[in-house]
Amino acid sequence: MGGAAIAELGRRAKAASRTLATASTGAKDAALHAAADLLQHRAPEILDANAADVEQAQSEGVTSTVVDRLRLSDARIEGMANGLRKVGALADPVGEVVEGWTRPNGLVIEKVRVPLGVVAIVYENRPNVTSDAFGLCLKSGNAAFLRGSSSALRSNIAIANVLREGLTKAGLPADALVLVEDASYQVATEFMQLRQFIDCLIPRGGPSLIKAVLENATVPYVIDGDGNCHVYVDRHADLDQALDIVVNAKTQRPSVCNAAESLIVHEAVANEFLPRAARALEGVELVGDDASRAIVETIGPATTEDFATEFLDLKMSVAVVPSLDAAIERINTYGTGHTEAICTTDLDTARRFEREVDAAAIMVNASTRFTDGEEFGFGAEIGISTQKLHARGPMGLRELTTTKYVVHGEGQIRT
Amino acid sequence: MGGAAIAELGRRAKAASRTLATASTGAKDAALHAAADLLQHRAPEILDANAADVEQAQSEGVTSTVVDRLRLSDARIEGMANGLRKVGALADPVGEVVEGWTRPNGLVIEKVRVPLGVVAIVYENRPNVTSDAFGLCLKSGNAAFLRGSSSALRSNIAIANVLREGLTKAGLPADALVLVEDASYQVATEFMQLRQFIDCLIPRGGPSLIKAVLENATVPYVIDGDGNCHVYVDRHADLDQALDIVVNAKTQRPSVCNAAESLIVHEAVANEFLPRAARALEGVELVGDDASRAIVETIGPATTEDFATEFLDLKMSVAVVPSLDAAIERINTYGTGHTEAICTTDLDTARRFEREVDAAAIMVNASTRFTDGEEFGFGAEIGISTQKLHARGPMGLRELTTTKYVVHGEGQIRT
Repeated sequence: MGGAAIAELGRRAKAASRTLATASTGAKDAALHAAADLLQHRAPEILDANAADVEQAQSEGVTSTVVDRLRLSDARIEGMANGLRKVGALADPVGEVVEGWTRPNGLVIEKVRVPLGVVAIVYENRPNVTSDAFGLCLKSGNAAFLRGSSSALRSNIAIANVLREGLTKAGLPADALVLVEDASYQVATEFMQLRQFIDCLIPRGGPSLIKAVLENATVPYVIDGDGNCHVYVDRHADLDQALDIVVNAKTQRPSVCNAAESLIVHEAVANEFLPRAARALEGVELVGDDASRAIVETIGPATTEDFATEFLDLKMSVAVVPSLDAAIERINTYGTGHTEAICTTDLDTARRFEREVDAAAIMVNASTRFTDGEEFGFGAEIGISTQKLHARGPMGLRELTTTKYVVHGEGQIRT
Repeated sequence: MGGAAIAELGRRAKAASRTLATASTGAKDAALHAAADLLQHRAPEILDANAADVEQAQSEGVTSTVVDRLRLSDARIEGMANGLRKVGALADPVGEVVEGWTRPNGLVIEKVRVPLGVVAIVYENRPNVTSDAFGLCLKSGNAAFLRGSSSALRSNIAIANVLREGLTKAGLPADALVLVEDASYQVATEFMQLRQFIDCLIPRGGPSLIKAVLENATVPYVIDGDGNCHVYVDRHADLDQALDIVVNAKTQRPSVCNAAESLIVHEAVANEFLPRAARALEGVELVGDDASRAIVETIGPATTEDFATEFLDLKMSVAVVPSLDAAIERINTYGTGHTEAICTTDLDTARRFEREVDAAAIMVNASTRFTDGEEFGFGAEIGISTQKLHARGPMGLRELTTTKYVVHGEGQIRT
């Protein structure tokens, strides 16, 4: 596939996006339900394609984790179908009048929510993303332009065929979903540079994918980046509560971006808290600074690199600080702007932490694990933005839209 | 100046931004007023520096338009000072709770408006931008990191020195304004790549500057791009009103981005409207398609390039279309997503135009010239975004902010 071929795919997605932008909520929901039903009815052909992907991956000797992400089952396909039905039940963000006012000269100005147009998603080897991303893009009135990994290509093609049939059944253009079937690196780079056709690119994957986007993309993008999340246990913390929060934030699901990676403890409570934390975090490898190691001897030595690392595993860095200021400074230095938690009972301390820590989400006396579209009540999420422009934090349907100003006059001219 | 030196400037701006993010509205307003007073008291030294810039520019043989943009006067300095005072009187966007809700598990989620951090502005030879950009950045709690053109360097240094003194007088860090004093091309490129220190870059200038940003910037940016704005005169238009709007949109200030560049007329009214428009637009060079030229012989032939050009001058392209669909198709093909106007009395036609034209602002029976921060009631503007992410249309103080989620719990953990 050359540059012309990928551009042609972009042109098709863009053309479909014009129709989708004014499609009724009813038509979009009908397509979501038709696609959901088809996913289940046509599960055998999707599973056949998936089996071929899995077989190839295994023959290439990938890890069992990768195979697990890649492998579909009837239950997983049902999950994808139910995901589409759930998005169908969410409120349509398109057409929302965000605000409106009348100017002294009589002009009536409205700021109206509209789709972005073509939303491109680059993702790795989870075939369910094909369906999930499609559902969120469709409901928000966007064409989905998808590029998955080569290891899931057969599965993605099978899923996309079924979803496109759902679109057609509901009278919407099949090109509301365009899958790039060439999963080469060169095409990925060309994809990220289709400024004419892509309104927003959202990469869903690990550090190497994010790096490729930062280096190569010329289209606008929203980064769902690393989460080097901290829990700070203040001198005024309720230590029992803090213990529950630290354990939950670290161990409830260590492989996700909103899991905690670093524990910071105020020196006034370190002697009491750290030994309890070390016991409660049994099975978690702890690495820390000298002060923490002087209190708990099982804590290993931490390098500067450790404090800057998102382990995504049962490993945690530990530091003792002399003050709230030092905790904030540490978090603003090592954090990635994702989620930062404080445990404190002191109002002033909480308010300073909220204001001075620079992150998408600040948790006061709650686990970092709550930064999530579902937990925030958005119904679904396309990712969690760690950038400041456009969207910050969990991204739901609204974050897949932009606004336009609609101004009504009666012949006003500017003098 | 090498890469290390520009990074050091960025580091200083970032450090100042931490203080500014939590500065009180009172302190920020005091600094704006102190800076405004100082600009006027120290006008002689600013004018001396400016005279040297003007002299050099003239010796290099630049056009009189360029010299006019560069030249300061007591009146212009007073205008800059009053601009700062006016920004001081605007509401502070920082701390606004945009929305908030309580989850079933008791978590209280608030979305709070916060500064971006360091806002970088690259601009051309208008020294007043140094002061204007500083004012908007400061009021919105951001450090301003400015890089003007070499031709205005002495003026910019003199202005920045005075503004920084205003900051110090109000007890705020002088580095809330950092001016890059090396105006070389290489440093401009390094500037656009300071991801660690720049939260948002806003270029203010012509197509070559925008092109440089698109090609070189790795920091997040908001583009204030071209305005190839159309006025579509529908078959249901009030033609007297349409005539006023077309003349105003084209001629009231042809050099700005919200001036109209193209006139589209429905064929049902073209015979009546076009001759009147050609007379009313006397002094404007008209170039058009065959259909328009068959009606008005003084219209010259237009190339495809003409229809895609933002003339910024007393020149306008003209086309006759058979339908609303054709008008919308034309606008979505040639437009730049800035401002598009329709003149019609038909409700359904207006609503279709509003929904189907893809632009930052849609004007129904009003001049394109109203797309402007002042005219929208924002009090001031840093530019007009033609992109879809983060901000679209006129950008005021709110568009210089982001949000963070502040979540309050009572020990909630995720199960």
